[in-house]
Amino acid sequence: MSSTTPVSLNSHDHIMHVVSKYDTFLLDCDGVLWQGNVLISGVADTLKMLRSMGKRILFVTNNSTKSRNDYQKKLSSLGLQASVDEIFGSSYAAAYYIAHQLKFPANKKVYVSGMEGICHELEEQGIRYCGGQEDNENISTADLENIKPDPEVGAVLFGFDININYKKLAKAFTYVNSNPDCHFIATNGDLTYPTAGTVFPGTGAMVEALAASLRRRPIILGKPHQVMLDVIVNKCHLDRSRTCMVGDRLDTDIAFGKLGGLATLLVMTGVTSKAELDASDIIPDYVIDSFGNVGGQLTNA
Amino acid sequence: MSSTTPVSLNSHDHIMHVVSKYDTFLLDCDGVLWQGNVLISGVADTLKMLRSMGKRILFVTNNSTKSRNDYQKKLSSLGLQASVDEIFGSSYAAAYYIAHQLKFPANKKVYVSGMEGICHELEEQGIRYCGGQEDNENISTADLENIKPDPEVGAVLFGFDININYKKLAKAFTYVNSNPDCHFIATNGDLTYPTAGTVFPGTGAMVEALAASLRRRPIILGKPHQVMLDVIVNKCHLDRSRTCMVGDRLDTDIAFGKLGGLATLLVMTGVTSKAELDASDIIPDYVIDSFGNVGGQLTNA
Repeated sequence: MSSTTPVSLNSHDHIMHVVSKYDTFLLDCDGVLWQGNVLISGVADTLKMLRSMGKRILFVTNNSTKSRNDYQKKLSSLGLQASVDEIFGSSYAAAYYIAHQLKFPANKKVYVSGMEGICHELEEQGIRYCGGQEDNENISTADLENIKPDPEVGAVLFGFDININYKKLAKAFTYVNSNPDCHFIATNGDLTYPTAGTVFPGTGAMVEALAASLRRRPIILGKPHQVMLDVIVNKCHLDRSRTCMVGDRLDTDIAFGKLGGLATLLVMTGVTSKAELDASDIIPDYVIDSFGNVGGQLTNA
Repeated sequence: MSSTTPVSLNSHDHIMHVVSKYDTFLLDCDGVLWQGNVLISGVADTLKMLRSMGKRILFVTNNSTKSRNDYQKKLSSLGLQASVDEIFGSSYAAAYYIAHQLKFPANKKVYVSGMEGICHELEEQGIRYCGGQEDNENISTADLENIKPDPEVGAVLFGFDININYKKLAKAFTYVNSNPDCHFIATNGDLTYPTAGTVFPGTGAMVEALAASLRRRPIILGKPHQVMLDVIVNKCHLDRSRTCMVGDRLDTDIAFGKLGGLATLLVMTGVTSKAELDASDIIPDYVIDSFGNVGGQLTNA
């Protein structure tokens, strides 16, 4: 479906009517389920209700620092139960994409600029990797000459890395620049990273540094890019027409759902203001004050 | 002057005729005067001859890691004498621009991501700064909350920094993002950094990371941008019609001269091949096999 203004869900009957149209709900996490480390009121009841109705729930996040196991722990710490198979982080999606869609050869390895979450997901998929935290120490100008092309590196994978440095940029650059067959992959393209009540440069910023010097664009996994949705559809055999994407960001979550042919539900508990929604070209099918309203008490955001 | 093919300088008479038309020669360094650490044959004689004819010589380089004093030492180590006032590095140009063109207030300071050369040039201009090598240590996720807007930071200056890290990106982002009056300046926009016989990501790559996350373009000093030329014209009272830019790169050196209304001379001892010159839209006025041919023996590049 598509319309010029979103349908506002503000009564239980209306919500139930919409819920009945979908079998699967893809849920963004931060801003939908929680804000920072605080669970949003009614969300636990909403998940319970959807599960009791037999709906499938998948958690879909661009955050690349955490593995699926880390995310399960985060959900659990807020009282939300989920199985690892219900969680799609951009690190997992990247590892799955490399293993299953690229059919990465066993004699190749991935050069990682990113944190533990990415490395764990690569390990789970049986993909060899190098880089990551082992390259956290800065390099000297004199040691640059020791960075050489390595034909064994078949992909460079960039995720959020608080330990990003020139050594990682220079190695990643060299592997891709010297080998046109080397894949250049980013977990997500988020230009900013929200934390501590503000924003800082995101994965996309680090990716732009490399993309600019290489004059080559990466394959980007995370929302709104469709590679992550392809991974989910492929693994879970989704019927797109019976799937609804729930999120708080127009340019990632809602665009992701719309580009993928899913229904879309915007929640007003995250980064999008009513004014931004009114001014946006990206129009969700539905809008609700809070995802907690679906199964909890109706509240205004 | 402007033409569709460059005039090739391959006889002494022709060279002397061209030299007589200009009072000032702006010289790129790497690829014009030297290759790596090796002086190009005839260059010392060329400089000697031009000086004996009363020509003014200025050394104009995008390299931001060195101060003018460092450059003087590098020239001297290759047997080329130069005064500090003849040297325009992009670090010096940035410091001069901040001091003289922005008339930077004494109660403000510059946040630097860059190396010692930048800091020395800011000191010489009496500009207060912070960051630089004092932020070389990585930051933890928990410590990000300690990065706060600082209204005292009136400019963020990015140059080449082999110790670039997330702390520097996050601080620079915060200062510019929180304060629309904070200047965002880059010494140069070079996307690659040639060293050790190959290339690695350049200053421009680091700048793109910040520019992408800020959704704001910086003021860029170095060639082909005109701010550095404005600094040189301003300080040296150049007559553009009597000035010739000599360089080995079409997209920086030659574009810089052409945009600035200078004559341009391409040398074939650097990064540009004859095939690249033939295919280029950027057409120098003159081309010569080697700058060493001007005052030395005629040789083929």
